[in-house]
Formats: sequence, structure tokens, C-alpha cells
Amino acid sequence: MSDILPPGSVIGILGGGQLGRMLSVAAARLGYLTHIYEPAANPPAGHVADRVTTASYEDADSLRAFAASVDVITYEFENVPTAALDLLEAAKPIRPNRRALAVSQDRIAEKDFLTGLGLTCAPYAAVSDMDSLQAAIAQVGTPAILKTTRLGYDGKGQARLRSADDAGAALADMNGAPAVLEGFISFTHEVSVIAARGLDGAVSCYDPGENVHKDGILHTTTLPANLSLAQRTDAVLLAARILNALDYVGVMGVELFVTPKGLIVNEIAPRVHNSGHWTQNGCAVDQFEQHIRAVAGWPLGDGSRHSDVVMENLIGDDILRVPQIATEKHAALHLYGKHEARPGRKMGHVNRVTPK
Amino acid sequence: MSDILPPGSVIGILGGGQLGRMLSVAAARLGYLTHIYEPAANPPAGHVADRVTTASYEDADSLRAFAASVDVITYEFENVPTAALDLLEAAKPIRPNRRALAVSQDRIAEKDFLTGLGLTCAPYAAVSDMDSLQAAIAQVGTPAILKTTRLGYDGKGQARLRSADDAGAALADMNGAPAVLEGFISFTHEVSVIAARGLDGAVSCYDPGENVHKDGILHTTTLPANLSLAQRTDAVLLAARILNALDYVGVMGVELFVTPKGLIVNEIAPRVHNSGHWTQNGCAVDQFEQHIRAVAGWPLGDGSRHSDVVMENLIGDDILRVPQIATEKHAALHLYGKHEARPGRKMGHVNRVTPK
Repeated sequence: MSDILPPGSVIGILGGGQLGRMLSVAAARLGYLTHIYEPAANPPAGHVADRVTTASYEDADSLRAFAASVDVITYEFENVPTAALDLLEAAKPIRPNRRALAVSQDRIAEKDFLTGLGLTCAPYAAVSDMDSLQAAIAQVGTPAILKTTRLGYDGKGQARLRSADDAGAALADMNGAPAVLEGFISFTHEVSVIAARGLDGAVSCYDPGENVHKDGILHTTTLPANLSLAQRTDAVLLAARILNALDYVGVMGVELFVTPKGLIVNEIAPRVHNSGHWTQNGCAVDQFEQHIRAVAGWPLGDGSRHSDVVMENLIGDDILRVPQIATEKHAALHLYGKHEARPGRKMGHVNRVTPK
Repeated sequence: MSDILPPGSVIGILGGGQLGRMLSVAAARLGYLTHIYEPAANPPAGHVADRVTTASYEDADSLRAFAASVDVITYEFENVPTAALDLLEAAKPIRPNRRALAVSQDRIAEKDFLTGLGLTCAPYAAVSDMDSLQAAIAQVGTPAILKTTRLGYDGKGQARLRSADDAGAALADMNGAPAVLEGFISFTHEVSVIAARGLDGAVSCYDPGENVHKDGILHTTTLPANLSLAQRTDAVLLAARILNALDYVGVMGVELFVTPKGLIVNEIAPRVHNSGHWTQNGCAVDQFEQHIRAVAGWPLGDGSRHSDVVMENLIGDDILRVPQIATEKHAALHLYGKHEARPGRKMGHVNRVTPK
């Protein structure tokens, strides 16, 4: 256990949103302090962190001071600029490692990596201009979806092509950014596996949850998912293969489409994941603590599921329903301390917990 | 629901130990900020609070500035000096209220209050000098225990009298402080009820837990407790009677001795309580959130117990067992971020959670 970060050590977290907030709480529970690095002022994670640096990812002095003040660095979002990571990594270990970030920052790199592991993704082709888009349409077919290769999330930087006629409009939506055309696949539902890998190489996966999206944003995750035992085993083994291949340390979210022909990987996120929020009220050790355990060199904890849970995201004006939800039986609320309830903004979530 | 403190409001917490720490996390989960007031530097609660004031309870300027910065004031320990409370209460509401504090700050006031409600306590008599001690021994009998009326906890400020011969030594131990002689009673075990009362007067009690002490400090709390259904009902009704009589708002710990003749009240604590830590992993809404809900004017949440739990305190060098506990199945660790593991110091706790 000599790799364990001593009590009182400081875990640096890049990003100060709700994921950083819940990571901070988990770190405290294990006896650590956290230092948040976040460009935006008054980040949700700052309310429960020991320290906050408000500075951009281009501010080399602030990055250096941050790195000097912490013992290990992790992140709550994957789009940290490469130059900032170079600078940070020169001073302190970054977990999960750079390869996980490189792969997940670029949709094409991610799909190449996954298919290289023998996993199945939706058909895809790189798009940089109208010629390559036409070739991609010929290869992938329509309907399809064109996405920027970088920096897209929650439906942003995406355009649908019902037919080849939509090519011009979709390409214009990319604003000249490198893109990837993804074919649609026929799936019955989406599940995700929250997988963790420790510094010692041990892998532990949470029971897969079933996701329902609304307006391109996760709406609910339901445990147990509608999966056969064989599918459940496939999902977990597939996630473990990804983590091992990356020599990954931490928690990863792996989104899967369930099809009659097997599981197809939709995307991976090298961090704690919205579809893993149910673990806060369904397991002795939740995804946030599991991530901190991995990053801090602890053995992974017991993530077995003790209850059935339905996690519901509270988006924008859903926050107005909190007084009603607060009176519900079985309801565990988790609010993010965001002041302004903009449309599409994740304001909190509720885990509804019932016996298995 | 108009009494609900708006999101983003600041809850002031007097005391920065582990109880304040876990209250801060619960407050954040409901969308509030916390401001800790604590005389000692680098308090555990500070790691997860938005703001910390390090100042004494005699520092009127700091108290006023603290009160001005918060929307409501609560506390994690009951021995806040009266003058400080006067000053704070002039500016902002204190919940639970002053009467609860006055009663629990003085062992004799507490016992007078409880017996006045028709509840049973161990026999007791006030002691200020050798004459009153001799009279108290005649009334209460021996063996007995002499305790200072104020500021005692976890076995401090206490002396045992095996017989009247110990009177002189016991009195000397009080250092001239007003004291109370408590008779021993014959009980089979100790339980405690963690009871909550909302701003609207609604009362909700957690399932009673069974406590085992070691060296005068709580060692374990086990759920379910060894209680008949009738005893369980008695315990909960009795706790509700106490809270209603005090027009109490918040969570209270009520320690009870189980005897063949019924339940005897050992003591009450007007705050979240060590014997309620099991609720963190046994209920949708734990005692810390329940307290914040009450203080912030929310409806009380669902505190029904979904699992069996054994809470074990990690005292002093017990912290060295953490690496081993971290690998246990069913174990949920909660560490307090204290740097130095002094003997008798509460360093953390572990909840071992199994299906009901």
C-alpha cells in the first residue's frame, strides 16, 4: 500500500463543475484536500473545495502554481488544452493518463482506438470538406450525423443528415472544424458501464445502467438495466478491455448501444460520468470515491449495488420541482449550487432508491 | 413552502469539527453555502466549507461579521458561550433555538426539563460542596457518578464513587465547578434515537440504533437495535415529546438506557450525533441533510432505513487500520481530515452496510 497518497495530501482537479464538486466531497471523505482549477468564476466545486484557482488554461503562471500546490492532478472534463497538460504533467502526475485524454478528445482517434481493440462502433468516416463528406456519405450511408471531432458534448457541434441533400447545411454547421460522419445504427436502448481501474491494475465495474436521453441530454439512468446476463458480462468485459489497453487509472464512463447483434460502443468519457450518479445512493462506494481511490493509489472499494435506483437529471427549470421532490419517499436530492437555471443546464439530480 | 431558504443562501455553522464538516457537505447537496465559525485553526469542516472564520467566541467583531455574512445559524456543538449566542441571535435566527441550548448546556436543567415532561432519568441531585455531596449520596446512593453540570463530554469532567468513601476525591476532581451526582441504574443496553423536527413542526425519527461504548467513547452503533416493537415505539414517541416541548428545529440525539422497567433518558444532544452517522449509508436522507433541511425550512426527507448498518468509530490509532478497512466488502469509510491521531481523538468512522 506504499503508493497510497498520505492523508492530508492535495488532489488537484481541473474543472469546477458538478463533477468536480462531487469529486471534492469524495476526496474529503477519504481525508484529502482538493484544489480546483477553473476558468469560470464561482464554480460549483469551489463551495466544497479547500482551494480554488480562477484562471484560464492559457495562464502558464497559474498552471505552474496550481501544480506546485497539489500532489496529484485529475480532471472532471476531457477538453483541457494540450499545452496546459504538458505544463502540468512536467510537475505532477496526471491521472487518468494523457493517452486516455488524447483518445477521448478526438472522436476519430477514439473510434480508431476502439475498433483497434476489436470492439464495434457505428460506421464512421473522417470529414474535412465537401469531397470527403460525399465520400463519407457513400461509405456510411444516411441517415447519419456529422460531428466535430473535438469539443462536442450534449448535442453541441452536431448536425443530422436525413439524406445526402443535407450535406451542405451540415458541413456549414461545422464552421470549418474537422468532423466525423457517423452512421445511424439500429439499437433498442443505451446502457453505460461505469468502470474503474486502480493504480495496481485492478478493474471494478458498476452494474450497467440504462440511459434515456431527452433533447440530446441524459434524462434518466435506471438500475437494473434491461440486459441479459450475457449482455451484462459482455458490457463489463468490454469496458475492462478499454481500461487495460489505456493503462487507465480512475473512473471511465463507457456508453453502449444494445443491438440484436451485440453491444456497440457509442463513446467513452475518461472521467466520472453523469450516468454513474446513481452510485451515490446505490453502493457503499460511489463513482466519485472510486475515482479518488484510484487516483490516490487506494484499493478500489465495494461498488456492488445494494438497491434499485432511478437517477433523474434536473435540467434548467426542473429545479423548480425541487420543493415537490423534497417531499417524495425514496428521493435523494443532489443539487449543484448553480445560481442561474438556464435551459439545458444541469442543476442537480435526484436518485430514487428502492430495495432490490 | 415560503419559509424555504433560497438556493445559494449561506448557513452559518458554529464549530468546525467533523459534525460541521458533514453538515457542510449536506448543505452543499441542497444548494447552500456554509460559513464555519471555529476558534481552532484549520478545522476539518473548513476543507468542505465555502468560508471559514477563525476567531474565539469572545471576539464580538468577528461574531458580528459572521452573523452578517450568513442567513441562518446552526451549531455542531452545544457549549457555545451565552454572550456569543446573544450577539449572534440579535442578527440572525439560531436553529435549534436557545432553549434547547440552555437545557442541554446544564445537566441539571436537562434532567429537570426531562422529568418535568414525565420522562424517567437516573436519580440525580445537585452538588456544590461536601455537604450537598453527602446529601446527594444519601438520596441517590452509591455507586454513583459525579459530573460537572457543564462542558463535560466523552467521559471528561466525571468521577466515579464506588462508595461514600470516594466523596472527597470525586469532589476534588470537579475543581470547584457545580456538579450533579447521578445514581447508577441497571440497564441491559443503550440505544439512541436520532430525531428531527422541521420548521413546520413535523417530527421524523430514524430507527433507533444500539450503542456500545469503549473507554467512555462511542465505539459502535448497530442497526437494527435489540428492541421490541413496543420499546421502539416508546423510544420514538419519547423523542418526539422532547422535540415538541422545546419547539425544536433540527436534529437531536436522544440517548436511552433500556431497562426491564422501561426506557430511561441518559442525555440529549441538540445537534447531529455520532450515533446517527449510520444514516449516511442506511437512508436516502441522512441526519446531516435532515438537520440542514429543518434549519433551512425544507420539509423533512425520507429517513427510513433501507439497510442494516454497523457504524464503527475510528479513534486515535484506529486510523492505521484504514488501508485494511478500505479493502473490505460493504465498508463505507468517512474520514475527517485530521492530521494528528491523538489517543481518544475521533479520526473517522466506517459504516458496514448489508441488506435488511
